[in-house]
Amino acid sequence: MRITTVGLDADDTLWHNETIFRLTQDRLRDMMSEFAPHETTNARLAEVETRNLRLYGYGVKGFTLSMIETAMELTGQNPPGRLIADILAAGREMLQEPVEPLPGVEMALAELSEHYRLVLITKGDLLHQEQKLAASGLGDLFAAVEIVSEKDASTYTRVFDRHGTGATEAVMCGNSLRSDILPALEAGCWGAYVPYPITWAHEVAEPPGSHERFAELGSIGELPRWVRGLN
Amino acid sequence: MRITTVGLDADDTLWHNETIFRLTQDRLRDMMSEFAPHETTNARLAEVETRNLRLYGYGVKGFTLSMIETAMELTGQNPPGRLIADILAAGREMLQEPVEPLPGVEMALAELSEHYRLVLITKGDLLHQEQKLAASGLGDLFAAVEIVSEKDASTYTRVFDRHGTGATEAVMCGNSLRSDILPALEAGCWGAYVPYPITWAHEVAEPPGSHERFAELGSIGELPRWVRGLN
Repeated sequence: MRITTVGLDADDTLWHNETIFRLTQDRLRDMMSEFAPHETTNARLAEVETRNLRLYGYGVKGFTLSMIETAMELTGQNPPGRLIADILAAGREMLQEPVEPLPGVEMALAELSEHYRLVLITKGDLLHQEQKLAASGLGDLFAAVEIVSEKDASTYTRVFDRHGTGATEAVMCGNSLRSDILPALEAGCWGAYVPYPITWAHEVAEPPGSHERFAELGSIGELPRWVRGLN
Repeated sequence: MRITTVGLDADDTLWHNETIFRLTQDRLRDMMSEFAPHETTNARLAEVETRNLRLYGYGVKGFTLSMIETAMELTGQNPPGRLIADILAAGREMLQEPVEPLPGVEMALAELSEHYRLVLITKGDLLHQEQKLAASGLGDLFAAVEIVSEKDASTYTRVFDRHGTGATEAVMCGNSLRSDILPALEAGCWGAYVPYPITWAHEVAEPPGSHERFAELGSIGELPRWVRGLN
């Protein structure tokens, strides 16, 4: 086979993301500590997020709205002083968080971009993802950027038809088995799973076991060699 | 010249949008009436929206966050009872509003789609815009959908290069001079302006005066004949 195109997830593959959500969630938990034990805040927020996902989709704005809804519920609709303003500010800070590529990302992408078409494929808020890509300094390495509302097999088929030579000649690399790897394998891609230390509950899935088009890599630094080995 | 592609804005061109924002803003104004006169609420919301636009971009989620921020400011950070919960609910209702094509849209698009590639080009929340297109029943008429964070001349150049035969062989049709028409003319497109009864302050602009590639139409029903006349 012949690989022409490499798709890359962005959040927690190219730069930190879940860590920023977790730190903000810790701040919410602390703000709420006089109203609810930590586990209650975490559990309620997870419930609210799941309930809203269908309407809000992925990203910081929906997360901020879900934090506010959680705070309202846990304070009996009577939030003290600056609580809501503080949550709004925490959400705005997430949107302004500096973006730094994870270790090894720049070198791996630079090497891959010499031989393959690189396509960024990510969920989240449209404007925020574009701003993060610009801030990362990685934008010029990508031939195309696709910000999508859901990552399923049809997404990968469509994106690699549009920007490459079809899914069967593409590698998809990311940190989420559920979003980046399993649906890409289903579409006929090769899948390179690079775990990130923490995973959002919504993204957890079982690895595909032994699959001829799948590999788990220790870091993104191993990606160029693995892709070269496929040709 | 030869027209191959017709770009269409979505909100307030294919279906109502600004009306839904205005009605929700009226609800906020009423909720706030014990704290601020109507004009104060409107003015403060406009300020907050403008301040947040760079971070939140366009769409219902950012608007909901701005409504909450406005309410917090106008209540001295001490919102009564269910105020914030009611604003959250109003935002969720906006996201679930039924979508119905404006009069004449279906017939105009059906006719255009027989002879030209139709491309939907819209700002807003990614997931919400996709859901609205699906709910409208118009999805199958479009060869491509581009949800973008900003509409400037480079956006139109990129979109019509990708999905058509370049901007000079494309018509862009929409209700916003500022977003749909002026930057499209700058990119070399033809521009068909179909006004909607109300325009968000942020979208107001002066018409281009006499311009050989510009027309103001009374309704979208006139679009197919105008486009045909260009060939």
